[in-house]
Amino acid sequence: MTDTVATRTEKDLLGEAQIPADAFYGIQTWRAQQNFDLSGVTLCHFPHLVRALGMVKQAAARANLQLGYLEPNRAKPIDLACQKVIDGEYHDQFSVDMIQGGAGTSTNMNANEVIANIALELLGQKKGDYQHLHPNNDVNMSQSTNDAYPTAVRVAILLSHGDLVIALRSLQQAMSAKAVEFIDVIKMGRTQLQDAVPMTLGQEFQSWASTLGEDVDRIAGLAELLHEVNLGGTAIGTGINADERYGKRAVTALARISGFPLVQATDLIEASSDMGAFVLFSGMLKRLAIKLSKISNDLRLLSMGPRAGLNEINLPPQQPGSSIMPGKINPVIPEAVNQVAYQVIGNDLAVSFAAEAGQLQLNAMEPLIAYNVLESIRLLSKAMPMLEHRCISGITANVEVCRAQVDNSIGVITALNPHIGYENATRIAKAALASGSSVLDLVREEGLLSDEELEQILKPENMILPGR
Amino acid sequence: MTDTVATRTEKDLLGEAQIPADAFYGIQTWRAQQNFDLSGVTLCHFPHLVRALGMVKQAAARANLQLGYLEPNRAKPIDLACQKVIDGEYHDQFSVDMIQGGAGTSTNMNANEVIANIALELLGQKKGDYQHLHPNNDVNMSQSTNDAYPTAVRVAILLSHGDLVIALRSLQQAMSAKAVEFIDVIKMGRTQLQDAVPMTLGQEFQSWASTLGEDVDRIAGLAELLHEVNLGGTAIGTGINADERYGKRAVTALARISGFPLVQATDLIEASSDMGAFVLFSGMLKRLAIKLSKISNDLRLLSMGPRAGLNEINLPPQQPGSSIMPGKINPVIPEAVNQVAYQVIGNDLAVSFAAEAGQLQLNAMEPLIAYNVLESIRLLSKAMPMLEHRCISGITANVEVCRAQVDNSIGVITALNPHIGYENATRIAKAALASGSSVLDLVREEGLLSDEELEQILKPENMILPGR
Amino acid sequence: MTDTVATRTEKDLLGEAQIPADAFYGIQTWRAQQNFDLSGVTLCHFPHLVRALGMVKQAAARANLQLGYLEPNRAKPIDLACQKVIDGEYHDQFSVDMIQGGAGTSTNMNANEVIANIALELLGQKKGDYQHLHPNNDVNMSQSTNDAYPTAVRVAILLSHGDLVIALRSLQQAMSAKAVEFIDVIKMGRTQLQDAVPMTLGQEFQSWASTLGEDVDRIAGLAELLHEVNLGGTAIGTGINADERYGKRAVTALARISGFPLVQATDLIEASSDMGAFVLFSGMLKRLAIKLSKISNDLRLLSMGPRAGLNEINLPPQQPGSSIMPGKINPVIPEAVNQVAYQVIGNDLAVSFAAEAGQLQLNAMEPLIAYNVLESIRLLSKAMPMLEHRCISGITANVEVCRAQVDNSIGVITALNPHIGYENATRIAKAALASGSSVLDLVREEGLLSDEELEQILKPENMILPGR
Amino acid sequence: MTDTVATRTEKDLLGEAQIPADAFYGIQTWRAQQNFDLSGVTLCHFPHLVRALGMVKQAAARANLQLGYLEPNRAKPIDLACQKVIDGEYHDQFSVDMIQGGAGTSTNMNANEVIANIALELLGQKKGDYQHLHPNNDVNMSQSTNDAYPTAVRVAILLSHGDLVIALRSLQQAMSAKAVEFIDVIKMGRTQLQDAVPMTLGQEFQSWASTLGEDVDRIAGLAELLHEVNLGGTAIGTGINADERYGKRAVTALARISGFPLVQATDLIEASSDMGAFVLFSGMLKRLAIKLSKISNDLRLLSMGPRAGLNEINLPPQQPGSSIMPGKINPVIPEAVNQVAYQVIGNDLAVSFAAEAGQLQLNAMEPLIAYNVLESIRLLSKAMPMLEHRCISGITANVEVCRAQVDNSIGVITALNPHIGYENATRIAKAALASGSSVLDLVREEGLLSDEELEQILKPENMILPGR
Repeated sequence: MTDTVATRTEKDLLGEAQIPADAFYGIQTWRAQQNFDLSGVTLCHFPHLVRALGMVKQAAARANLQLGYLEPNRAKPIDLACQKVIDGEYHDQFSVDMIQGGAGTSTNMNANEVIANIALELLGQKKGDYQHLHPNNDVNMSQSTNDAYPTAVRVAILLSHGDLVIALRSLQQAMSAKAVEFIDVIKMGRTQLQDAVPMTLGQEFQSWASTLGEDVDRIAGLAELLHEVNLGGTAIGTGINADERYGKRAVTALARISGFPLVQATDLIEASSDMGAFVLFSGMLKRLAIKLSKISNDLRLLSMGPRAGLNEINLPPQQPGSSIMPGKINPVIPEAVNQVAYQVIGNDLAVSFAAEAGQLQLNAMEPLIAYNVLESIRLLSKAMPMLEHRCISGITANVEVCRAQVDNSIGVITALNPHIGYENATRIAKAALASGSSVLDLVREEGLLSDEELEQILKPENMILPGR
Repeated sequence: MTDTVATRTEKDLLGEAQIPADAFYGIQTWRAQQNFDLSGVTLCHFPHLVRALGMVKQAAARANLQLGYLEPNRAKPIDLACQKVIDGEYHDQFSVDMIQGGAGTSTNMNANEVIANIALELLGQKKGDYQHLHPNNDVNMSQSTNDAYPTAVRVAILLSHGDLVIALRSLQQAMSAKAVEFIDVIKMGRTQLQDAVPMTLGQEFQSWASTLGEDVDRIAGLAELLHEVNLGGTAIGTGINADERYGKRAVTALARISGFPLVQATDLIEASSDMGAFVLFSGMLKRLAIKLSKISNDLRLLSMGPRAGLNEINLPPQQPGSSIMPGKINPVIPEAVNQVAYQVIGNDLAVSFAAEAGQLQLNAMEPLIAYNVLESIRLLSKAMPMLEHRCISGITANVEVCRAQVDNSIGVITALNPHIGYENATRIAKAALASGSSVLDLVREEGLLSDEELEQILKPENMILPGR
Repeated sequence: MTDTVATRTEKDLLGEAQIPADAFYGIQTWRAQQNFDLSGVTLCHFPHLVRALGMVKQAAARANLQLGYLEPNRAKPIDLACQKVIDGEYHDQFSVDMIQGGAGTSTNMNANEVIANIALELLGQKKGDYQHLHPNNDVNMSQSTNDAYPTAVRVAILLSHGDLVIALRSLQQAMSAKAVEFIDVIKMGRTQLQDAVPMTLGQEFQSWASTLGEDVDRIAGLAELLHEVNLGGTAIGTGINADERYGKRAVTALARISGFPLVQATDLIEASSDMGAFVLFSGMLKRLAIKLSKISNDLRLLSMGPRAGLNEINLPPQQPGSSIMPGKINPVIPEAVNQVAYQVIGNDLAVSFAAEAGQLQLNAMEPLIAYNVLESIRLLSKAMPMLEHRCISGITANVEVCRAQVDNSIGVITALNPHIGYENATRIAKAALASGSSVLDLVREEGLLSDEELEQILKPENMILPGR
Repeated sequence: MTDTVATRTEKDLLGEAQIPADAFYGIQTWRAQQNFDLSGVTLCHFPHLVRALGMVKQAAARANLQLGYLEPNRAKPIDLACQKVIDGEYHDQFSVDMIQGGAGTSTNMNANEVIANIALELLGQKKGDYQHLHPNNDVNMSQSTNDAYPTAVRVAILLSHGDLVIALRSLQQAMSAKAVEFIDVIKMGRTQLQDAVPMTLGQEFQSWASTLGEDVDRIAGLAELLHEVNLGGTAIGTGINADERYGKRAVTALARISGFPLVQATDLIEASSDMGAFVLFSGMLKRLAIKLSKISNDLRLLSMGPRAGLNEINLPPQQPGSSIMPGKINPVIPEAVNQVAYQVIGNDLAVSFAAEAGQLQLNAMEPLIAYNVLESIRLLSKAMPMLEHRCISGITANVEVCRAQVDNSIGVITALNPHIGYENATRIAKAALASGSSVLDLVREEGLLSDEELEQILKPENMILPGR
């Protein structure tokens, strides 16, 4: 006795296939499932992408209804079906691999088929009975994959971008809070890993807050790139087979549905194949990744130890560090952030290759671009809260260690420079280094400055700000 | 009424936690699950890695047993538990994210904990009752994450490498079969996309078979890099806390278990932090990706059309190409291969960044390296059968189109070069191009060669091989 | 008899050295020359960088003069010396390798020394007689490498950016001119390299003009990133040893001198180590490179032939293409553009690695970042005029070939779709493909549309624009 | 009065041009100079490439002479002219930009023209009087750019590879010498930047020597990839217009001339377009770069200080580190090595893009590949002696600092683990950390081990090797 799954028969240009009877997707989705067993990551892994597909189809249906091409008895159930997808239903039916040939056709058809079958059920018809409502003729009306898909990808990134900015802003605020907490912790600044001049730990945390803050603004600025969509261009941007009023109406509807200020691209032919917005946006994600990696590197440097390292700060322990070394705790959270950053940088390269591979009126590699941009956003959106809640918020300072490094440093000589002259300063720096003695002791011994003068000059507030 | 899951209490350096009662993993795995919610891809996504962990733990247990450190009543159940993991059981318990901080500690502890709990059940004890058999003291005996984990990753890649080579060799053979099939199809060769001189379609397919064949050998050669393991080095390669005889015995046992000719690295300190083998192996995967991408590009070029392109070959249709353009079929399979190739190249960059980030006695980014190398192998191992079965095997040639392009070409003038002189040849080439007429007609008109001579020179077998 | 070069003796922290008597640089430049013999590309290879260094030093001297720290008898000759450097004199004295350790200290000292020695000569003193005017104490007053150098690099990029935009805009205009010229050349559009629907060659060129036009704006937008400078931050951004009024005055002076609307960064500590502006600007250069490469790929595709390819356009011949194939001409200019693009993409990766390597209060790898960003700008600024003048401007269209491909295509069926129905269209497309006959003939034969209707529908102006 | 340069007239397919009368290059080189003003780096920047071109032309001339195609009165002067080029003469005449369109045709013609004109002078004829001896017909006889150029590039890399290995081996030996010097310097090993267990500084240097030693062998192994050349394949690998005996004879001659065991590729069509050898060799250079970068990072970490850092070793000062901070010395040499490494990694990416862009029977981007591989070899060959002589050789150890870190560390507890138990060890580690006291003191206080036992266990030789 074999296991039998109930099926229905569907057909397309290439012939017939048996589709699971309870599937909302249809034959073209089914073919794509067979063709592309690659990453194992399917569309539903990115709910924002699925929602965006629903929004595009809904906008198209409304424009087609307005212009009289789609009868209300078809437009209404399509609209409702799209709404369900937007609201998070039926996402498991979006089952095509994110890495797929066909420039997104399989994704677009997956959406067309699922929406058609939901709508058919709303109409009281059976799934697959497309004479009543057809994935291509009705759901995909006035569209081509080549305009519907890139538009949906843009909307998906815009939706995801919101999550990213929330995570980034929150991390920035956690950094700022620590900057306030550590405002009085004086420590050595270092350039090229060599002792430089004093600063406060608060200043250091504030510099991280500042650098992340810049990206909050910058990412928002670049998101504008994605507001320009090519909906209405159909196959190659000439708008063949679409009513000339359709494009603008569909974009207006989509702007209303999505809440983003979308506009139709002025050169739809250019917009059909151009991946420039994705390349630059991915470059921005790379920039953020590099900043997060640099900060993670710094956190790991400053927490080196506990005894044979800088030991300026303590990261909150999250898990035992070693099975062989008792008591060892490792900076696992920053290490994970580093790795996420490297993955994002690698993904950016995949985007670059795919973008360069566009040919003539289309870029057939857009699915890979969509996959990598969305995945990088997802990774960063998960790594930043991890860094915030499992690391930054719990950091404590070793105040005495920090202070002792300043007192013991050669670098304070720089502050004495304007008072004892560069020549004296250099001589004393060399002597201190050679003898292992303190710069301050040597200055005192030589009677170059009085104790009062020294105290005044070396007050933290006088070393960590401009002024001479 | 809330949902209650039965739990057991476990504790470690940082305190206690509630672990699901039926989980074979323990507290350290649980902490890692909480800490690292990043890629969503867990260890069990790579069965070869899980199996390799089982092999390493089994090898260590056997060495520890031989040397008298591990009692038989602990060694035996550990050995059996490892075997179950090697045989594919309990893989779902390997639940830590592939992207993780801690240099693999969480992966190593996941293995230690699962194996310990399987062994405990074999002993008739309860899961979590580690006094009878301990994840660290017993399963991890004589090991550190820093030698056990890199060793397991190497074995995992060696296991995966087998799949890769099988897929590659099969693809190569499919190419060779087509080379034979098309041995007589004469066509224009092209350099820099410009018409060059004639060749056969069989020669073209054979060149693809040859370039893939080279990689079969080369990948095998580079896999040798991975035969050198650092098991026995423990924490930093000095072998602290391990019997001096242990390392070689464990490696010997692992070689026997895995079937690979593994050897212990001569400089274990170097081997603990060195990622060179992974960098070069990943570079080799990139090379294969580039070759596959180039072949896919060629397939797409040669099948351009059907009317307004080269149209030399037909790729077997796999899915309808367009919802708006009736009858359109696209080269979706090569397009998917291109994208896999770009992802592999991006992954290679992530590996490069992670490898460069090693510091002092360890590379904390090794989990990302393992993830990307294994993922690239997996992607290539899936893309090549797809290319073979859904594209190469079904390719047909448009023999007349190919032949007509040769007959109509300016490029045949090259073959006449030694017979009519470079100067005449250049003059006729220019004239043919300007007038749109045939090179052969012009040669005949001018009476430069007789019809018999022309026929002889322009026989395919005389144009596609050396000789003058 | 050996060759003796006249020298002068200079000394620094490490001891004495013999400097060529006629050299305007001094001992620290000389040490850097000895230390760094790497790329062979010295500072003077980038005149904008040398000029920018002169501007920064001039601005600092003016601010120091205003605040009374620098006596007029020192400030004036420094100012004049800087002006000479800005005007293009003494550039050969900027002789340190672009790849250098020290975070730009050697570049900064090269500038300090050259300017000091020019000023000394203006004062009637001998080169090297630094008691009268000192490279560090006077020329470098109130500055550190860590604020002067990053500021100069930003100004250098802004200066270079002007060249880039001019080249880009000019190329865009050449594309637009061709778009007008080819406005009536109807041809097949292609998606995924397969025949799609008709368009005009003018539309295709316009799409390239549009995509380049977007980058004119976008690059200008990103150049704003570079308007924020950290002058006044001195060693680590705390402004140690500089008057608190100095920074803003120096930036104001630099803005006036350079003509750019520069502002001082609000967080100078962050600004000292942050490479984000360079990362994003380099990402923008990568985007432009990718676009240029895609366009070059398209040009090479469309000019495939002359007989066995698409042959839609002719690129102007620039050099004979082959020594063995008479009359062969190759698309050498687009090929060179592709290679420039790939180099720019590679350079962007070097920037990414260098940016990620920043540590604590500084990024010691900034010289490599400066080198690669400036080199990428230089390459693109040279490649675009080459593409414009040696390729685009001379392109001609093969109007009949283009038209015939449309007439012969299956793709025109799409335009008939709304008139004869999708089902009829698909059936006819398949029949045409199978039989090799014309779609139009089959439609006529079946009497589906009258000749008048066909003529109307298939008018170019009806196929290349929206409407149904 | 204008400046007049004496010229001679040359002509080619495209018309006439005026060539400087004293130039040994001819019209095609001149055209390439006009066409490609890009990198500014010309062929003569890579003497090994110019020599390799001479070798290939000499080998071809000898094969053509043997087979009777080239008369001795032409073959002899060509042979002699090639020898002069091989010996380093006339290199300034190789004046085409390394970045060039045309797949190397301009480089090949540059060689053909220079050699022809040298030979003409040897024959007592005037430069440009090609009726006596022709660049194409004679110097390029039986060759195409498509076989001569890739062959020359391979030979050039093999020649450069020798320099690289010498530099690498020497650096390795310097590391080994330091390993011996520091054999007794006990210090803390660190994993994940956290204190781990003791080791010696000698072991650390030895690990660097080992990792570089592996690459000596590995690079030699990969150089074998380049022994396979496609000479004899002519235009597309079919060998059109060449005698069937020619290829093997030419390769044999080239092997003898160059001293490398070259063989002719078995599939010449594959070999004409395949860039796999370059991709993998470049990947190997990337691996070496990553290793050098990691070592440089470590050197910079270990020399952090002088007071507020690890301060385990001192790098020899090479130049003053700061104009503002008296006495500051920076690790400028490792920093320069890092930057070279990043450039090499960037170059590898340019190679990847170029390799992927191959189409059909040729890769038109090979000039960029040649440029980047040769440049990366050159950079590494210069960076390694710099690192050796200006850094490694002068490194000194701060023995007391290293020892004190061990004595003071928590990490020694690991060595006590087998003696006092994991539970005790963990408890004491936590207590030491909390109280700031010494692990040893706590162990002594608790009477867990006698002083004799402690002394025995903590002897360096017992902590840095396996054994329990």
